[in-house]
Amino acid sequence: MATSQRTVFFGRFVSTPTPDAYLIQHGAILVDRNDGHGVIAKCVWDDSLDAEQLDKVCARLGVEVEDIRLVKCNENGFFFPGFIDTHIHASQYPNSGIFGKSTLLDWLTTYTFPLEASLKADPEVVATNGNTVNGTNREDVEQVVKKQKTDPLARARLVYDKVISRTLSYGTTTASYFATLDVEATNLLADLAFMKGQRAYIGRVCMDHPETCPEYYRDEGPDETVQKAVANIEYCQQVDPSGELVAPIVTPRFAPSLHFESLCRLGKLAQERDLRVQTHISENVGEVAWVKELFPECESYTAVYEKSGLLGSKTILAHGIHLDDTELDMIRSRGSKISHCPSSNSALGSGFCQVRRLLEKGIDVGLGTDVSGGYSCSTLDAVRQACLVSRQLGYVKGGDKKWNIGVAEGLWLGTVGGASCVGMAGKLGGFEKGMIFDVQEIELGVAGSQNSGPVDIFGWEKLEDRVDKWVWNGDDRNVSRVWVGGRLVHERK
Amino acid sequence: MATSQRTVFFGRFVSTPTPDAYLIQHGAILVDRNDGHGVIAKCVWDDSLDAEQLDKVCARLGVEVEDIRLVKCNENGFFFPGFIDTHIHASQYPNSGIFGKSTLLDWLTTYTFPLEASLKADPEVVATNGNTVNGTNREDVEQVVKKQKTDPLARARLVYDKVISRTLSYGTTTASYFATLDVEATNLLADLAFMKGQRAYIGRVCMDHPETCPEYYRDEGPDETVQKAVANIEYCQQVDPSGELVAPIVTPRFAPSLHFESLCRLGKLAQERDLRVQTHISENVGEVAWVKELFPECESYTAVYEKSGLLGSKTILAHGIHLDDTELDMIRSRGSKISHCPSSNSALGSGFCQVRRLLEKGIDVGLGTDVSGGYSCSTLDAVRQACLVSRQLGYVKGGDKKWNIGVAEGLWLGTVGGASCVGMAGKLGGFEKGMIFDVQEIELGVAGSQNSGPVDIFGWEKLEDRVDKWVWNGDDRNVSRVWVGGRLVHERK
Repeated sequence: MATSQRTVFFGRFVSTPTPDAYLIQHGAILVDRNDGHGVIAKCVWDDSLDAEQLDKVCARLGVEVEDIRLVKCNENGFFFPGFIDTHIHASQYPNSGIFGKSTLLDWLTTYTFPLEASLKADPEVVATNGNTVNGTNREDVEQVVKKQKTDPLARARLVYDKVISRTLSYGTTTASYFATLDVEATNLLADLAFMKGQRAYIGRVCMDHPETCPEYYRDEGPDETVQKAVANIEYCQQVDPSGELVAPIVTPRFAPSLHFESLCRLGKLAQERDLRVQTHISENVGEVAWVKELFPECESYTAVYEKSGLLGSKTILAHGIHLDDTELDMIRSRGSKISHCPSSNSALGSGFCQVRRLLEKGIDVGLGTDVSGGYSCSTLDAVRQACLVSRQLGYVKGGDKKWNIGVAEGLWLGTVGGASCVGMAGKLGGFEKGMIFDVQEIELGVAGSQNSGPVDIFGWEKLEDRVDKWVWNGDDRNVSRVWVGGRLVHERK
Repeated sequence: MATSQRTVFFGRFVSTPTPDAYLIQHGAILVDRNDGHGVIAKCVWDDSLDAEQLDKVCARLGVEVEDIRLVKCNENGFFFPGFIDTHIHASQYPNSGIFGKSTLLDWLTTYTFPLEASLKADPEVVATNGNTVNGTNREDVEQVVKKQKTDPLARARLVYDKVISRTLSYGTTTASYFATLDVEATNLLADLAFMKGQRAYIGRVCMDHPETCPEYYRDEGPDETVQKAVANIEYCQQVDPSGELVAPIVTPRFAPSLHFESLCRLGKLAQERDLRVQTHISENVGEVAWVKELFPECESYTAVYEKSGLLGSKTILAHGIHLDDTELDMIRSRGSKISHCPSSNSALGSGFCQVRRLLEKGIDVGLGTDVSGGYSCSTLDAVRQACLVSRQLGYVKGGDKKWNIGVAEGLWLGTVGGASCVGMAGKLGGFEKGMIFDVQEIELGVAGSQNSGPVDIFGWEKLEDRVDKWVWNGDDRNVSRVWVGGRLVHERK
């Protein structure tokens, strides 16, 4: 047995198995990668455990000292479950922070479609994200063009490589990605995620309606839509036959962008092959009215997905801001999930998702960064924004504190909630025996020391407050190491 | 003449002299520190200027090459006016991100007063920010206690040193600080700001009402309040007799915390000595009702300050969320300013400041981080949050885009708007002849390179989009150098 496959993680472990408080534990966790999954084989929680007495630690875990590798949490830090980003457009990453004064529908045509369309195999692709190139950038652009001549997917590779590295550096161990219409580039995203070791659901975006999609960026019709979806699905399943790390996800962009026939055939496809589904729902008031106009035979936005067979227990619906009670009941009864994307909702002025109402209905809710409607690919930022917008919503609702998402609850949404959304409830998001070890190590600086990172700890803060301080001011500098399935996939430089 | 006193800054300069767009200029600026202020002596804007031909640049500026020091902006960056934080509680910095589920009034008593009260000369001060100390932090705390024995102000020194360094590192060249009731510790803040070279207004906090302030943290009554205010004012004026860099600011905490007599005597003091004033106004619905109760003879919150003589053209009112039209007219007619603190308002669920309405009334508005009601001491974060909450406000107001604060306007509030608030309109916030050179150098990374910072530039973005990307994802890693009055006061490690 290769000793390096068994690892003992030692130190302080913080998690949020429930939304109301942090669970803070001290002890050791045994992860055995011989199982192929990186599952937690055993936990020992005991404040008196000391890593200096490794033999005693190992005895409690039932392993021999020489059979394991020890990973000690740093003194000023703690292990925390990896974040799960339930909604992110990998292809839009270069546009992070670029949305001007737009709201959803004009943002799509002005910023989003041109960039997405440019991520495909094409030696002549230059800068086509709606911008003219000014003199100062010419050299950078020429370099990309040059690379494209030898590697037609250079541009897609640059973007996808970067977004995976970045999200890993922010502690995102699982991401549900929208890519683009291009099969080859979307397949590349699957390759890169697998190679870099991020748990990733890869969605080739489907859109084919000539009246709602630009001519330069749509499939020809239902046949091509389904055929290309299948091509990407089968490629992803080749990349990772287990489907544990990388798996396909059926991705109709949103109801307006597809023929009803396409929606139905994608629904059938997902059901037949038991696949995950992701799409958008009820993000923007104008969009909701548009859907009503486009699908007069459906009584609601949700009903469009229900009738097309897309509303299943493996379906992630992004946003869900303007849903009525009937729709929520329908979503609940089908077991579909909602990805709450607070940064994006504020940035595009879409409205306030009533997270408390969704949770009270019994709907699973996770967090999404929604890059680049959201400006940041950091799920920690999404946690912050979820807390902030909930308090603003509370203000709008007359100051009722019931709407408040507390900090622990925000983290719970970004881990446990996310796990439910991606069909990994009980497998991701915590430190219990049998769960997969997808974990980030958080390190907090001490005020007065050099390079202490963005969070200043003064020494007198109790641990709960330190965690709060991390949430509000932390960034990638606080993420020292990241593991997915027990495999080290990121180490801070 | 010491050559090092004359500096030529060369490269790209971005600023927001108007709220609607970026002004992007290329050229050179001559700053002559022999004047004692670091004023811009001359600007030459010319895209064809080349720093390699320094003799030509100098000829255009009317100086000799051997008489100047050249500071070149880095290739991927630009100079930007330093930020002006018009409302920040220096003493609350250690509590950044700690506010639990509180709103304004319980937040004050639970988190804020205990921490503020602990920042004073006392060899026995330990951890008194409302927290018990758990085992893991004992050593840190013991160190602070040990330091206090030889330096009774060790705790205050640690906190104030850190908050000045941090805000400088975020590009804040000017800050209007609330300190605490303690004169000695507040004087120390003045010393440290002067030493570190940050432009700072130093406010010894005044509160003395026995029914509204805790017994452990209030002045005895009007006499002590005014006497201690004067002591700090005169100390600050000794530290910097010019009042250019460091100056006192009269700081009644807010109406509820003072006897009406104290408010009036502080108002008189400010008028007699022609001093700046800062306080809070109309932050929280409960607070507004409380003020009405406490001051039944005044027709509004604003009227309390008006009647006590505190509402002058040098007065900064923080928050100003729930003001009615009569109050706004009163504020406008007195020329008082409003510090908009979006992060704090969201974090404490205080409401939405209607910035557009204030601006349309003709009131000067700047941004405040409001640490630690606000969780971050970064004014760039305040810019982001100002943009976000304005879009949420627009949503609440039925989707009217007029409420939107655009990115350029957010930056304008954080520079030009702030300058108006602190009585430095036309002197700070831009790159014009005669303005003071308070400037940050912004550096943006290139995707694919190592250590590129938090903002990924792909090469095809036009400059305006790069600035947007900086605003939305930038942090202190993008601030490579900071100058105040032409003096280098921060350099990124």
